[in-house]
Amino acid sequence: MSSPGHTDRTRSKRLPELASHDLADLQAILDAALVAHICVIDGDQPFVLPVAFARNGDRLYIHGSSKSRLFTQLATGVSTCLTVTLLDGLVVARSVFESSMNYRSVMVLGTCRVVEGQEKAAALQVISDHLLPGRWDEARHPNEQEDKATMVLALDLNESSVKISAGPPDDVPADVELPVWAGVVPLTEHFGEPIDAPDLPVGVAVPDYIRQWKR
Amino acid sequence: MSSPGHTDRTRSKRLPELASHDLADLQAILDAALVAHICVIDGDQPFVLPVAFARNGDRLYIHGSSKSRLFTQLATGVSTCLTVTLLDGLVVARSVFESSMNYRSVMVLGTCRVVEGQEKAAALQVISDHLLPGRWDEARHPNEQEDKATMVLALDLNESSVKISAGPPDDVPADVELPVWAGVVPLTEHFGEPIDAPDLPVGVAVPDYIRQWKR
Repeated sequence: MSSPGHTDRTRSKRLPELASHDLADLQAILDAALVAHICVIDGDQPFVLPVAFARNGDRLYIHGSSKSRLFTQLATGVSTCLTVTLLDGLVVARSVFESSMNYRSVMVLGTCRVVEGQEKAAALQVISDHLLPGRWDEARHPNEQEDKATMVLALDLNESSVKISAGPPDDVPADVELPVWAGVVPLTEHFGEPIDAPDLPVGVAVPDYIRQWKR
Repeated sequence: MSSPGHTDRTRSKRLPELASHDLADLQAILDAALVAHICVIDGDQPFVLPVAFARNGDRLYIHGSSKSRLFTQLATGVSTCLTVTLLDGLVVARSVFESSMNYRSVMVLGTCRVVEGQEKAAALQVISDHLLPGRWDEARHPNEQEDKATMVLALDLNESSVKISAGPPDDVPADVELPVWAGVVPLTEHFGEPIDAPDLPVGVAVPDYIRQWKR
């Protein structure tokens, strides 16, 4: 796994102070996110689609329908970009110009590879463990038909960039004296109370491992 | 503004039951989101980047640095895709295969146009009003130098698709009898207590319009 921002096309020219070259940042952002946006090009038209994903070491896995246009196109090994963004807050500066958002984002460049066999089964567990920790031990695993209907793709973390925007607004000195509030309004995600499926048999309770999910 | 999913490349072939052709859904999802992911292609390499955005009628506005590679490339009128995704919950089915997420997403296809003059000033207010409601009346507006450093792009809502995945898991009948919990774990965003900028003069309080921001 290479450090973020080590190639010319992933090096931040503008606002280089937001770039991180730290593998730990790369991993932490990917591990904190539930959804990524991935691009596939058809002719000259790009399509950006949300996908569930998970990281296993220096590799990302995504899964989808074997019949999906996006997945079959990505499976051919075309160049792609997968981006993850976590919004942390609104930065309320005295000026409109300096107002912005705090965020952590990762951009991964590369090509996808179709995952089969033992790696596929392991990848499905990695994705389940990331999105629904503890669920793999209790859920019914894919049967042969479901396995065929599912495509798993791997995207190695060989080329990436990380940007982290954090902290208070950076107003110009003249603006600081304005009698106007400035600061950050934090933005956080939370899980709500689990909602039983309507067809849940009486007496089946929400398991502890689900109650422990936190964001 | 055209209904979502009215062209061949925005029509949902797989899972058409998730597609919405309702303009009200398109508008509501865009208006509820703070960040979008937009693609720009450089050679054969796509880049997917997070951008703040806002809707004004049948048009989206994004803004960024006039020197940004992404923005200067988009300004040439290349085909692009802007996608917005709101995650609403984790769908915990009895089977791994049926487990998924509830989400609302919009994909917009088109080309960007550089916005200048009066429309640019109005667009900056539209973006500010969307992200920081009420702030425009209090913040210092862009001066000439800041205006030059900012590029505003418009993307018309002529071609889009909307997908909405909601509700409980859809397990196969045989799985429903398993003694395993199933349901949805909702996911919501919240604003936290505003954090004063360290250089805030004593006695400047958080304004009411900011305290009223809700997600």
